[in-house]
Amino acid sequence: MLSSVFRFTLILPLLGLAHAAKPSTLSPAEVLKQSQPSDWRALDAQNTVLMTVNGSTVIFELAPRFAPRHAANIRKLVSEGYFDGLAVIRVQDNFVSQWGDPVDEEKEPEKLKPLGGAEAKLPAEFSIPLAKLPIARLKDVDGYAPITGFLDGMPVAANPKTGRAWIPHCYGVIGAGRGNAVDSSNGSSLYTIIGQAPRALDLNITVVGRVLKGIEALSALPRGTGPLGFYEKPEQRVPISQARLLADVPEAERPALELLRTDTATWQRWVEARRHASGDWYVHSAEHVNVCNLYPPVRAKPTPAG
Amino acid sequence: MLSSVFRFTLILPLLGLAHAAKPSTLSPAEVLKQSQPSDWRALDAQNTVLMTVNGSTVIFELAPRFAPRHAANIRKLVSEGYFDGLAVIRVQDNFVSQWGDPVDEEKEPEKLKPLGGAEAKLPAEFSIPLAKLPIARLKDVDGYAPITGFLDGMPVAANPKTGRAWIPHCYGVIGAGRGNAVDSSNGSSLYTIIGQAPRALDLNITVVGRVLKGIEALSALPRGTGPLGFYEKPEQRVPISQARLLADVPEAERPALELLRTDTATWQRWVEARRHASGDWYVHSAEHVNVCNLYPPVRAKPTPAG
Repeated sequence: MLSSVFRFTLILPLLGLAHAAKPSTLSPAEVLKQSQPSDWRALDAQNTVLMTVNGSTVIFELAPRFAPRHAANIRKLVSEGYFDGLAVIRVQDNFVSQWGDPVDEEKEPEKLKPLGGAEAKLPAEFSIPLAKLPIARLKDVDGYAPITGFLDGMPVAANPKTGRAWIPHCYGVIGAGRGNAVDSSNGSSLYTIIGQAPRALDLNITVVGRVLKGIEALSALPRGTGPLGFYEKPEQRVPISQARLLADVPEAERPALELLRTDTATWQRWVEARRHASGDWYVHSAEHVNVCNLYPPVRAKPTPAG
Repeated sequence: MLSSVFRFTLILPLLGLAHAAKPSTLSPAEVLKQSQPSDWRALDAQNTVLMTVNGSTVIFELAPRFAPRHAANIRKLVSEGYFDGLAVIRVQDNFVSQWGDPVDEEKEPEKLKPLGGAEAKLPAEFSIPLAKLPIARLKDVDGYAPITGFLDGMPVAANPKTGRAWIPHCYGVIGAGRGNAVDSSNGSSLYTIIGQAPRALDLNITVVGRVLKGIEALSALPRGTGPLGFYEKPEQRVPISQARLLADVPEAERPALELLRTDTATWQRWVEARRHASGDWYVHSAEHVNVCNLYPPVRAKPTPAG
């Protein structure tokens, strides 16, 4: 059967693995191949967290420019071992995976894990002044914000009318849970987005960073069957054995990864390549890209030529 | 610690469970509460598939208006038991979950499960004439298409310049895998979207329908570790024990579900409620909604009074 030949090959070209360059269009992979070492940067050791979830490592980078107080508090919590022994307590399909202290704080507040030297309450850090932020802007229209782009490797949205900029809730973005009071978060309860970007959350909650690698340890978990996706039984919770600041991990044990810098011409070329469909498979090109469909590439650090 | 009080309650309001109505704004839940029986419809028995994945039921509705030949072929495949005993063979994070015949058609084409009375090759059904389609249009801008909205319970995108309409690749949308030839799909290999809408696929592949219920049986699976998320070992594949057309299931065993009709004033009110943030938790309202953030509500069929 002729058609069956394509059952496995059918989506190969979707990932850019089979891009056949048109005369003036490079594929995303080709853009990266032409990149220079200076287009890449190391992970920010002081703001990168390695978290072990059910034996797998999730690597996320904090966004101190956007949420300095929360980033500092999370660094504190992590360095004091706060997350060690806690758990993923909620996974709601097409929305969020959330982790923190599984203790029911209304029923047994005395059993909550102490926050140690970290702050219990922080001011809202929902947005920052747009001012002259060096955002690598996208030219593409976005329904939720007049400006979108990237800064420090984070997706960014901004509104010149209000003069504010913020990190939009794209897949893999991490936020700090809060109650009804806007200053009720402290970074001890975190969530990441595991579905279509719920941009209605933007400007309503403090975004603290973004997962760089290993999100499947949070996104591929069984969905909770309780209200809002909370796990109903303690044994369903997914254990977090530890979280460590990259700076506290011995150099030799650090993952040798690099992130494509979003303030480079290579980044702009990569975005342009993503905007256009290239290769033999596509018959139509959207000529458009959404800020939440772009994830700055991470690569293994090239070994020095000897 | 004051802040810890909020660890569990923090995202309650996000789902509309705690909406406190503002004078002129109903919450989505309140709109549904005020709906009439005629605002809802039964699942289309001739175009609804119940598929058992690893013991859980996924319910999806085909879109015969958009892909009549593929819908007919899939009905044929399902009614002849084609999918029974096949498997989910690929799960790629933030992209697709794909199912079909696990046999490697290049190495062992003779072992492929026969398609029976179904067609082996169908014409591309990437879009249909826009003409006078009764689309329930959204007023919100979308970067990928001049018009977006809903029709037959499916998300729709359209372009008056080209005169075409299509189903965009939103979370839960199902498509028919194809090779490089646009007429190489037949519906025997299907995928559903499990992440941020990859709208670059729009107009490049035939969309055949949408998951109505149970997508977690496809989205919460372990991600495949092979290229493109294919499972590398046969034992990693997730078994599909059977797929049945709802019409072939005895009435008494059919799931008693209803879908909110998208051609009603209630739908419009529900969309408006989703566009506005309501309740005590939100401090900002996007006043915008994206076609891929709206999923027509499904409910248990009310039992007749009396």
